[in-house]
Amino acid sequence: MGFADSALQAVREKRSVVVVGLDPTLDRFPPSVQPKAPQPEAVSRALVDFCRGIIDATKAAAVAVKPQIAFFERWGPPGLEALAEVARCAKENRLLVILDAKRGDIGSTAEAYASAYLDDSGLGPWVDAITVNPYLGADSLEPFLRRARDRGKGIFVLVRTSNPSAAQLQERPLAEGMPLYEAVAELVRQWGEEAVEAGGYSNVGAVVGATAPEQLRRVREILPYHWLLLPGYGAQGAGPLDVVAGFDKNGAGVLVNASRSIIYAWENRQDVDPDGEGYAEAAQQAAEEMRSTIAEAAARSAPPV
Amino acid sequence: MGFADSALQAVREKRSVVVVGLDPTLDRFPPSVQPKAPQPEAVSRALVDFCRGIIDATKAAAVAVKPQIAFFERWGPPGLEALAEVARCAKENRLLVILDAKRGDIGSTAEAYASAYLDDSGLGPWVDAITVNPYLGADSLEPFLRRARDRGKGIFVLVRTSNPSAAQLQERPLAEGMPLYEAVAELVRQWGEEAVEAGGYSNVGAVVGATAPEQLRRVREILPYHWLLLPGYGAQGAGPLDVVAGFDKNGAGVLVNASRSIIYAWENRQDVDPDGEGYAEAAQQAAEEMRSTIAEAAARSAPPV
Repeated sequence: MGFADSALQAVREKRSVVVVGLDPTLDRFPPSVQPKAPQPEAVSRALVDFCRGIIDATKAAAVAVKPQIAFFERWGPPGLEALAEVARCAKENRLLVILDAKRGDIGSTAEAYASAYLDDSGLGPWVDAITVNPYLGADSLEPFLRRARDRGKGIFVLVRTSNPSAAQLQERPLAEGMPLYEAVAELVRQWGEEAVEAGGYSNVGAVVGATAPEQLRRVREILPYHWLLLPGYGAQGAGPLDVVAGFDKNGAGVLVNASRSIIYAWENRQDVDPDGEGYAEAAQQAAEEMRSTIAEAAARSAPPV
Repeated sequence: MGFADSALQAVREKRSVVVVGLDPTLDRFPPSVQPKAPQPEAVSRALVDFCRGIIDATKAAAVAVKPQIAFFERWGPPGLEALAEVARCAKENRLLVILDAKRGDIGSTAEAYASAYLDDSGLGPWVDAITVNPYLGADSLEPFLRRARDRGKGIFVLVRTSNPSAAQLQERPLAEGMPLYEAVAELVRQWGEEAVEAGGYSNVGAVVGATAPEQLRRVREILPYHWLLLPGYGAQGAGPLDVVAGFDKNGAGVLVNASRSIIYAWENRQDVDPDGEGYAEAAQQAAEEMRSTIAEAAARSAPPV
């Protein structure tokens, strides 16, 4: 079973679209999980411990984790070992793993990345899907798309991102009438045509910021049977009503990521738990609250049958 | 002395604009440098040995090396250690190091990348410049641009890439008249304004494929005092006349990358040297020939004084 079907099954079984973004930064770790020493090896051990706690606490409410590779890579080789361990731990806990890498490069390099992240060696066995950047065009994505077709790997193409400057290029109006991000969404539709799984969804989807609900609605029109990965929930400002615009006619097709508002939820309780011993429990509650809040908003906005 | 001045000094002293792209793949390594075992540790040792040979052989003809991070990363943590060793070796041989990473991500992640590649820890001490992707807009590049302003690091923004599909998005005509890549070049001009060094060049430059000489000419008009990094020479098909379009009015401002045509030049001599013992010498000749061919083409096309 490839990514598209696995995601559908997980969303239905858990009645959840929650993705927990793993962006571990030491300065927001609770004192109880701080590394014993500043060396990359000790830091990497702390990253693993922290993320294991989050995974174990949120595995019931969430369908996937999205480790952001930069937060591991910055610690050098031991950081990448930590990432592999975290991804394996997530898989063992039946969470999908979406590697947030945003790669985009020319043919031979794209092949190297796709191999490193999606094949049987390295991180591949623990990674279900990956994010990619479209600026270099089709040939730069072909090694990823091939693995979506042949190996059932999930590919999320950046279409309209969640950051404040996203509109600077992505919403530039093209001479043909539409803004650039819509042209990218059209390409995603073409790229995804040959990677549709049994459940009707394609393995090729799009990243669309929940911070841009109007653009999200437009992308959903262009991509009716595609998974949309929605960052921007929580700390970046988007709420449940913003993400509902992304649901497809089956009430599925979206995965909503929150990173800091879940993994650092303990910060809101620092007055009663200054050492953050309950950081995992705080994450659990934040993830469960996000799950139920979105489910309720979706139910309220569902068309009457 | 920051990147822009260092590049100017190197180009003048060596009368060269050659950048040697380090894209090491085992299947093209000469038998004499093949790893002793398939494990990442042995492979990484072979990557270092191979690249050391190339660096030592090309350090007179070239001004910089451009390691492509994917070709190291694919071997996991030992691969990244190899990259650090290769970069250090290049610096010790007075070559500039341009890390080809093509990163582009939202604020907190961009900060993590910029820190990992350009600060005093990790790869930072050995990296002079880095390539970045503009699709996410200004805030995604700010952590890099800040290090261009404050620490003299070089930033090369992808403007018009050298791959076959580059035009698919980059040459889309905008409603305002120009193609997308020109709009990106205009942004690069703004971003580079506060990072101009004593020699008159900005630390913020652009990647423009030598395979697209018309677009290169246009980018040069928009970016008159900026370093342009030109991939696509050699194996990708561009020749000396193509790159000349990128030279500025001082006959400088370009860095021309060739990867496979230099580092695998030994393949053309396999009949006389089947084990590739002379791979470094072959690279030396290829780099020197590239240096002199471009210098001659530039001299012929220089405006009469």
